[in-house]
Amino acid sequence: MSNKITKRSEETKKDLITRLNKSAGQVNGIIKMINEDRYCADVLIQISAAISSLKSTYGVILENHINNCVKNSDENFEEKIAELIKIIKRS
Amino acid sequence: MSNKITKRSEETKKDLITRLNKSAGQVNGIIKMINEDRYCADVLIQISAAISSLKSTYGVILENHINNCVKNSDENFEEKIAELIKIIKRS
Amino acid sequence: MSNKITKRSEETKKDLITRLNKSAGQVNGIIKMINEDRYCADVLIQISAAISSLKSTYGVILENHINNCVKNSDENFEEKIAELIKIIKRS
Amino acid sequence: MSNKITKRSEETKKDLITRLNKSAGQVNGIIKMINEDRYCADVLIQISAAISSLKSTYGVILENHINNCVKNSDENFEEKIAELIKIIKRS
Repeated sequence: MSNKITKRSEETKKDLITRLNKSAGQVNGIIKMINEDRYCADVLIQISAAISSLKSTYGVILENHINNCVKNSDENFEEKIAELIKIIKRS
Repeated sequence: MSNKITKRSEETKKDLITRLNKSAGQVNGIIKMINEDRYCADVLIQISAAISSLKSTYGVILENHINNCVKNSDENFEEKIAELIKIIKRS
Repeated sequence: MSNKITKRSEETKKDLITRLNKSAGQVNGIIKMINEDRYCADVLIQISAAISSLKSTYGVILENHINNCVKNSDENFEEKIAELIKIIKRS
Repeated sequence: MSNKITKRSEETKKDLITRLNKSAGQVNGIIKMINEDRYCADVLIQISAAISSLKSTYGVILENHINNCVKNSDENFEEKIAELIKIIKRS
């Protein structure tokens, strides 16, 4: 992991934290379900929902990244494009 | 969500709780990264890792479900098969 | 690959062949697009469509498989369940 | 679909056509399997393989697109970035 920084707007930051708090809540809810011996099919639905939320947050950050870090990079544009391709391939 | 119950072995339960605690830790780590203005590409890697962990837990529960709930259901086998198909289609 | 056989109804067979002929047509259409130097974004949309069709056919065959091969297997039910888990894990 | 053109190198074009011919061959092979009543699990493996090939071709074209169309666009860079985000969201 790098020491690099992304300066996000307060609005973006707040939106991301809200999304991730929801994901944390979902995961804690699933832990509770296992502790309460809840039915597999019901647990699976909740795990799918947690995965969907995280994927959606992933999409928001990737979009921000392209719109800010990539689009506005001047000196290291080539590097940003190479990094973006790596990110997309991994997704 | 149903009121149905799955009686899991202590071993299975412990394994699932360990996995889900790891997922919760990952999500909390990502919240910390946003609070610290960490670089988008680094945040994306951690979200991918959290998604992978949840998918892997999903697979474990689905496998347990087929091996226990579906395989050993007697009276309501038809119903379990129909439910399984719904689960798989949604995945 | 095994020598095993699945006896499908004429209706199922016809439906699957129709779906797969459509997929073949989509792939041939994409080849034509490359030969005509069509724009990347347009080619990508057609590849996504071809992937979606194949995924949908995959789902139909998997559903048929569970509803027929798995549900109606008697002597080798354990084996079918183990195989089904392998298929789902790979999906 | 647009009337836009992507001028690909002969090498890229040849690589893409080879990949897509392979995909067409895979789909035709699956049609043959259905006609021969081949076992579901075996057919599913071949559909998965065909989906993987198409996904891999998708990745190659997306990478080319970013490296050429997006990186080297001058006047309409904003538009290319917006389009790229749409492509990635859809993927």
